[in-house]
Amino acid sequence: RISSERLWASLADMARIGPGVAGGNNRQTLTDADNEGRHLFRSWAVAAGMEMGVDRMGNMFFTRPGTDPDALPVYIGSHLDTQPTGGRYDGVLGVLGGLEAVRTMNDLGIRTRRPIVVVNWTNEEGARFAPAMLASGVFAGVIDEDFAYARRDAQGKSFGEELGRIGWIGGEETGARKIHAYFELHIEQGPILEAAGRDIGVVTHGQGLWWLEFTLTGRDAHTGSTPMAMRRNAGLAMARIFEMVQTVAMENQPDAVGGVGQVTFSPNSRNVLPGQVVFTVDIRSVDQAKLDRMRARIEAEAAAICEALGVGCAVEPVGHFDPVTFTPELVGRVRTAAERLGYSHLDVVSGAGHDACWIARVAPTTMIFCPCEGGLSHNEAEAITPEWAAAGTDVLLHAVLETAEV
Amino acid sequence: RISSERLWASLADMARIGPGVAGGNNRQTLTDADNEGRHLFRSWAVAAGMEMGVDRMGNMFFTRPGTDPDALPVYIGSHLDTQPTGGRYDGVLGVLGGLEAVRTMNDLGIRTRRPIVVVNWTNEEGARFAPAMLASGVFAGVIDEDFAYARRDAQGKSFGEELGRIGWIGGEETGARKIHAYFELHIEQGPILEAAGRDIGVVTHGQGLWWLEFTLTGRDAHTGSTPMAMRRNAGLAMARIFEMVQTVAMENQPDAVGGVGQVTFSPNSRNVLPGQVVFTVDIRSVDQAKLDRMRARIEAEAAAICEALGVGCAVEPVGHFDPVTFTPELVGRVRTAAERLGYSHLDVVSGAGHDACWIARVAPTTMIFCPCEGGLSHNEAEAITPEWAAAGTDVLLHAVLETAEV
Ligand SMILES: NC(=O)NCCC(=O)O
Ligand SMILES: NC(=O)NCCC(=O)O
Repeated sequence: RISSERLWASLADMARIGPGVAGGNNRQTLTDADNEGRHLFRSWAVAAGMEMGVDRMGNMFFTRPGTDPDALPVYIGSHLDTQPTGGRYDGVLGVLGGLEAVRTMNDLGIRTRRPIVVVNWTNEEGARFAPAMLASGVFAGVIDEDFAYARRDAQGKSFGEELGRIGWIGGEETGARKIHAYFELHIEQGPILEAAGRDIGVVTHGQGLWWLEFTLTGRDAHTGSTPMAMRRNAGLAMARIFEMVQTVAMENQPDAVGGVGQVTFSPNSRNVLPGQVVFTVDIRSVDQAKLDRMRARIEAEAAAICEALGVGCAVEPVGHFDPVTFTPELVGRVRTAAERLGYSHLDVVSGAGHDACWIARVAPTTMIFCPCEGGLSHNEAEAITPEWAAAGTDVLLHAVLETAEV
Repeated sequence: RISSERLWASLADMARIGPGVAGGNNRQTLTDADNEGRHLFRSWAVAAGMEMGVDRMGNMFFTRPGTDPDALPVYIGSHLDTQPTGGRYDGVLGVLGGLEAVRTMNDLGIRTRRPIVVVNWTNEEGARFAPAMLASGVFAGVIDEDFAYARRDAQGKSFGEELGRIGWIGGEETGARKIHAYFELHIEQGPILEAAGRDIGVVTHGQGLWWLEFTLTGRDAHTGSTPMAMRRNAGLAMARIFEMVQTVAMENQPDAVGGVGQVTFSPNSRNVLPGQVVFTVDIRSVDQAKLDRMRARIEAEAAAICEALGVGCAVEPVGHFDPVTFTPELVGRVRTAAERLGYSHLDVVSGAGHDACWIARVAPTTMIFCPCEGGLSHNEAEAITPEWAAAGTDVLLHAVLETAEV
C-alpha cells in the first residue's frame, strides 16, 4: 500500500503553486506558475532516483530503470496544468499518484522487469491554448507539432513562444518513445462514483467530443430605435442555439451531453444589438454514431435558426476526439487490483477527455478514477478525501506492478 | 435656409477625430479623442462669435447674445461622444446643426430677442460610463453629481478622474442655467422615416427605458463529465431569459422593444459550464404602464426560469427613464416649420433616449428627427444624405427663430 500521508502532503505542496481565488488553483499551462510546478515535480522525481527526459512539446518523462534494459517501459501520468478556476486534483493526482507509486516501490525495495516512467503532459486543459490534450495529441501523432506551436492564447501569445519563454522545449522528438502500457489515475470529475458509494472507477471507455465554434453575424443596431421586425439579432440566434443544443443532448440520453462555456459578444454595449457573437458548443458521447448525428443535427438546426433571423452562421470545429475503448486486459488488471485490495468498484465511462484518450491510439492504455465531492470539477471548490486518493493510488500501484512484472 | 455644404463639411471634419475601424467613429466620452472633438467645436463656436461656459459635468454651452439681456435663452444641442463602433451623425448632427443655425443667422444678420445657446452634453452614449445621458441627467436634477463622478468604466477609471484628466471640469454649477426652450435635432436611429419617404420626423414622445442587469449564479462544472441532470447551468438560464424577453417584447407590439447587448460569462472557458453570467436586458416603451408591466413580467419569469434550473437570479436596474411627452407648442412649431419649408413630415416617437428626454423635465423641449439609411445606428455604417441633414437643420433654424423671437 502507498503512503496516504505522503501523497496528501505532496498534493498540498503542489496546490500552493498558482493559487486560485477560492482555495483552488490557477496554474494554467506555460505560465510562470506552471514552470514553478514543473520544477517542484522535477525535484521530487529526481529525489526518488528518476532521470528526466523532455520532448519538444515540454512533456516531462521521469524514468525508474527496470531490470531488463531491453523491455519497453510502463508509463504512468497525467497533467499538472489547471483551468483558470481549477481544482487541486484534476490532473495533479495522476502525476503525483505515479510519483507516489514509485516512492512506494523504493521504500519496499521492489524492482520491476520493465522500467517505469512517470509523465507530466503539457497543456491538457486547453483553456489557454485550444484544443485540450494538445501535447499528448502531438505525442500520439494526431496533432501536428507546427499546428500546436502556432496555437495562440487570448492575448495573442503563441504556444511555441510561451513554451520557450518558460524554458521547457526539450530535445527529444515528440512521440519517439515506445510505450508498453499507459495508466492514468484521475478524479472522476463527475458524480457517479460518489452517488454509488464506490471507491474506484474502472474506466472502460472515454467519451468522444466535438468543440464547434460558431460565429454568428447579425447587424449592430440600436436596442431602442430598431423595431423588433427589423432586427438581425445574433444574440437571440445564440440563445435559440443554446436551447436547441440542450434539447439535442436531452433527446440523446443516456450517454450524451452538450453545453456552452465560452461566449463573446461584439461590440458588447448595453444599447447595441450585437453584430457578432462567437461561442463554442461542446458535445460528447461514448457512442460514435450518436456523436456524429448530434453534430450534424446541431449544425443543421443552427443554420435554420440563424436563417429565420437573418443572421449569418459559420461553424468551425476547434476540438475533436473519437470515443475510446480502453485496453480490456489492462482494464481487467485495474478491476482485479481493486478486488484484491478490498476496494468497492464500478465500471464507468470517462466523461472528460484525458491524455489517456490520445495515448490509447499508440499504446495499450487504461484509466483509474477516484470519486470527487458532488462530481464537481473545473471549479476551485473541487474536493476529494485522502482515502479516495489513497485507494486510487493503491490500485494504480498494483495494476502497474502486475504490468511491469515484478 | 442653412448652408448644406458648410454643415456637411463640418460633419466630415468632426468625423476625422476618433476614427473607427469601418468608416465610423470611436470617440467615446472623456477619451483623448473626445477632448480633441471638444476643442474643434469650441474653435468653430468662438469663430461664430459665441462665448463658452462649462459646468462641473463638462457640458459645454456657447451663447449668441439676444437683444433683450433679461430674456431666457433658447437652447439647441445634442452630444459629440460616440459608441465604441458608432456612426458619424448620432449626436453630432444636433450639435453641429445648432452651430450651423447660428452661422446662418450671422450670415443673414438675424438678431433674436432671446439669446441662443448651443450645447454639447457630456457622455450621452453611456457605453463607457453607464447610464446613458449622464450629464444632462445631472443637469436636470434626476442624477446625483457625486454618483455620476463615481461611475467607472470597464478599466476601473472613474468619470470624475477622466473628466479632470481631459481638462473639462468647468466652474458652473450643473443645472444652474434656466432654459426658455430646448430643441434637439437628431438622426432617427430607426427605419420609419426612410420607409415612409418623409424628410422630417416631428417627435411627439420619447420611449421610456429600463436597463435590468441580471447576475445569474450557477455552478462552474465540467462540460463533459457533469451529467445533464446535475447541471446548474447559468448559460442555459440566460438563453431562456433572452427568448422570454423577445416573447414579452413581441406580445407587447406595437410600442415595445426588448433585447440584450452586453453579456459576460465566467470563467468563460470552453469546457466549463459558467458559474456566473451577467447581462443587461434593455426594454423600452412609450407607454408607461406597458413598460412597468414588461419589467415586472420579465423579472418574475426570469426568477421562475432560474429556479427551475437551480440557478440564482439577482436583478439590478442600472438605467431608467420614464416615457416623455414633448411640449405640444414646440412640437407644433416644428411641424409648421416643416410645412412652411416644403418638407414632408411624420409624427414619430423617439425609440432612443436623448438628452432632450431629461431636459424635458426642467424646460419646454422638443426634438426633430432626420431619416438615416436602413434605420441603422450604433454601427459604423450609419449614414444620412446631405439633403436629410440640411432639411432637419432648416426646420431647426425656423423653429428656433420663431421661439427666440426675431
Ligand atoms: N479532464 C479534462 O478536464 N480534460 C480537458 C478536456 C475536456 O474538456 O474533457
Ligand atoms: N440616442 C442614443 O443612442 N442614446 C443612448 C441611450 C439609449 O440607449 O437610448
